[in-house]
Amino acid sequence: MSAVPVDGARLDAEIEELARISDTPYPSVTRVLFTDTDLRARAWLTDRMRDAGLEVRVDAIGNVIGRWEGTDPAAAPVATGSHIDAIPDAGRFDGVVGVLGGLEAIRALMAAGVRPVRSVELIMFTAEEPTRFAFGCLGSRVLAGVVDDARLGRLRDADGLTLDEARAAAGVGGDVAAARLAPGDYAAFVELHIEQGPLLEAAGVPIGVVTAIAAPATLRVELSGAGGHAGAVLMRDRHDPLVAAADVIRAVDREARGSGAEDTVGTVGLLTLEPAAVNSIPRHVRLDIDIRDTDEARRDAVLERVRAAARDAAAAQGVTHREEILNADGPATSEPAVLAAIEEACAEAGLPAMRMVSRAYHDCVFMARICPAAMVFIPSRDGISHRPDEYSSPQEIADGVRVLAGALRRLAG
Amino acid sequence: MSAVPVDGARLDAEIEELARISDTPYPSVTRVLFTDTDLRARAWLTDRMRDAGLEVRVDAIGNVIGRWEGTDPAAAPVATGSHIDAIPDAGRFDGVVGVLGGLEAIRALMAAGVRPVRSVELIMFTAEEPTRFAFGCLGSRVLAGVVDDARLGRLRDADGLTLDEARAAAGVGGDVAAARLAPGDYAAFVELHIEQGPLLEAAGVPIGVVTAIAAPATLRVELSGAGGHAGAVLMRDRHDPLVAAADVIRAVDREARGSGAEDTVGTVGLLTLEPAAVNSIPRHVRLDIDIRDTDEARRDAVLERVRAAARDAAAAQGVTHREEILNADGPATSEPAVLAAIEEACAEAGLPAMRMVSRAYHDCVFMARICPAAMVFIPSRDGISHRPDEYSSPQEIADGVRVLAGALRRLAG
Repeated sequence: MSAVPVDGARLDAEIEELARISDTPYPSVTRVLFTDTDLRARAWLTDRMRDAGLEVRVDAIGNVIGRWEGTDPAAAPVATGSHIDAIPDAGRFDGVVGVLGGLEAIRALMAAGVRPVRSVELIMFTAEEPTRFAFGCLGSRVLAGVVDDARLGRLRDADGLTLDEARAAAGVGGDVAAARLAPGDYAAFVELHIEQGPLLEAAGVPIGVVTAIAAPATLRVELSGAGGHAGAVLMRDRHDPLVAAADVIRAVDREARGSGAEDTVGTVGLLTLEPAAVNSIPRHVRLDIDIRDTDEARRDAVLERVRAAARDAAAAQGVTHREEILNADGPATSEPAVLAAIEEACAEAGLPAMRMVSRAYHDCVFMARICPAAMVFIPSRDGISHRPDEYSSPQEIADGVRVLAGALRRLAG
Repeated sequence: MSAVPVDGARLDAEIEELARISDTPYPSVTRVLFTDTDLRARAWLTDRMRDAGLEVRVDAIGNVIGRWEGTDPAAAPVATGSHIDAIPDAGRFDGVVGVLGGLEAIRALMAAGVRPVRSVELIMFTAEEPTRFAFGCLGSRVLAGVVDDARLGRLRDADGLTLDEARAAAGVGGDVAAARLAPGDYAAFVELHIEQGPLLEAAGVPIGVVTAIAAPATLRVELSGAGGHAGAVLMRDRHDPLVAAADVIRAVDREARGSGAEDTVGTVGLLTLEPAAVNSIPRHVRLDIDIRDTDEARRDAVLERVRAAARDAAAAQGVTHREEILNADGPATSEPAVLAAIEEACAEAGLPAMRMVSRAYHDCVFMARICPAAMVFIPSRDGISHRPDEYSSPQEIADGVRVLAGALRRLAG
């Protein structure tokens, strides 16, 4: 076999076009689950899939799936895909490269006259980003059955809307449980993604072959005190949950740095106050804390130290303390057969590759629970992601698509 | 003279009625400047003023002023009043007691057949609370000329709207500078208000006579770092402004407690992150810090130590640091003649009174710049304010109104 030709210019134009469907001005991208903007982006993507000849369906959690029928329609398909939702003020490549790049890989295989035995399916996963419901990888979790109905029923967005209400408003109907897949429903899954870190750029290598994805945990801590008027309550009478929260922020930073391994990272990315008024002592503070590691035991040890620090901080201020582990998933390990298909495709395309682990979270974490799976990374300039200046060049993206197309061809037979 | 009879039941019913014009359900009150809810409350209040026979005008900053004409219309009027705006999730008495209580005092004087020489004016001040534009006492500052046009022109709400745009949307027109008063335009000002602290309740005294109002300062600190993906950026490569903010929160608490006087208080009541996403390192953090003291020099010393701590915290995290003093007003001292009128009214009504200082901020701070002024406090249950369970009893409120009516009668001649 020889590498299929990829239309990098068309792909680049589509990435630019999709970037402009956003709540924030280019090059900033904000696309939050089931907002009007997200729905416009979904409609635009569906049109592109149909233009390419894919048969498109939407499941009950809102995953958009385009199918290129194989010569054996009864055989389990091979899948690729990623997400197009974006956190507030993000960049235009995170997730999008895997969705539009997946579409381009399929178009390239079609144009090269490939007739796969297995069908090839392109999946745009619902809400990989946790923005709206503080719960990431919603679409891939549901497909893989890694979330129970009770948990989904408890989800509320910042306006108090349930997931079912948000689905209904977006015109996404049906029983969410019906979207769940069984092991064997897919023959393999490959996700193309930007690295979101600096390693490929530093090594001067265009392709990363991801052998494992770090295990992330999210801890929510809620602290509540007496509140009161900022002028009228003496310092000695205060029970200020924000002072306790300051100690928690410090503890996350200290414990992640002190884990003994550089792979441990800890972040407070969300912190909200009630009331939020300059002349009021806060009554409630909520922190969402993200702790990740390639080693699950080490991650859990840091998580326990942060939980203990939060309890101590609450006690020191005389505020009440509530905590909830929003998720604590295990790491995902890639399947050797899928890694082999990716590495053969790299060789075929003449592209150097290096094996690496991912410390960022991806839908592939969950797809790996129900089928052989692996990821392809391409470089991120300066390792930057989740920012408007996130950047991968058209050449880097096209190289990633060449590898993806080669891997899909091998896996689809 | 004998104390005029006050209709406490009518006043209580009006307070309950106004509490229900709110963005949050009773007993929580949320009324933010020039929102639809604020405009409905203003219209309701205007109707109550007109029902009482007052002639109502609205000035260019939106202060609503009701006038009861005296026998000498050319004489400088005596004024009373307060505010009806409320921070998010506040109570139903802060400010409202001074506006509806002021109206009841006027009605009681009318019913008692009093014919004052000076006119009596009831002022509902615009935006005593800083919620919308992070700038408190907007209406009284403008009346007293304690804010310049450039500062007003720079004000922006959370949606980026200017004050002029917000005024226009609310139908409040005219040149703001024209609302400014000159010394002598009012003969005296008395503000009735809940204490928002525990001292009257603890002493078992129904009336506080306020001799001075503490000097508040507001410092805004903005910290900016590199941001990035919570999984992908190693701890050693981070520049996290929220970690620096944690040190600032701690410094405010430490320096306020360490000032050497219990009258010093320091609060971080507002803290916002951008982006606010669980899997993103914050790029920007903004803190609004409130520092108050009855002693201006001691307050400013604490302010300087907090500023130094913020600079150090930014440097330690390698984040950039910007700061702005949003306001740093001097303390207000009450006028002996107005204090005497209040204390005579207490004696006349048979109500024990104690002199005290206010550590909360009031429109009277600014009215005291342009006329003889003082305040009357009534007890707050458990010292609670800025919360839905803020409470003063109908009897306590009616007692405050009796004192206010007696003071206004004396001052109006």
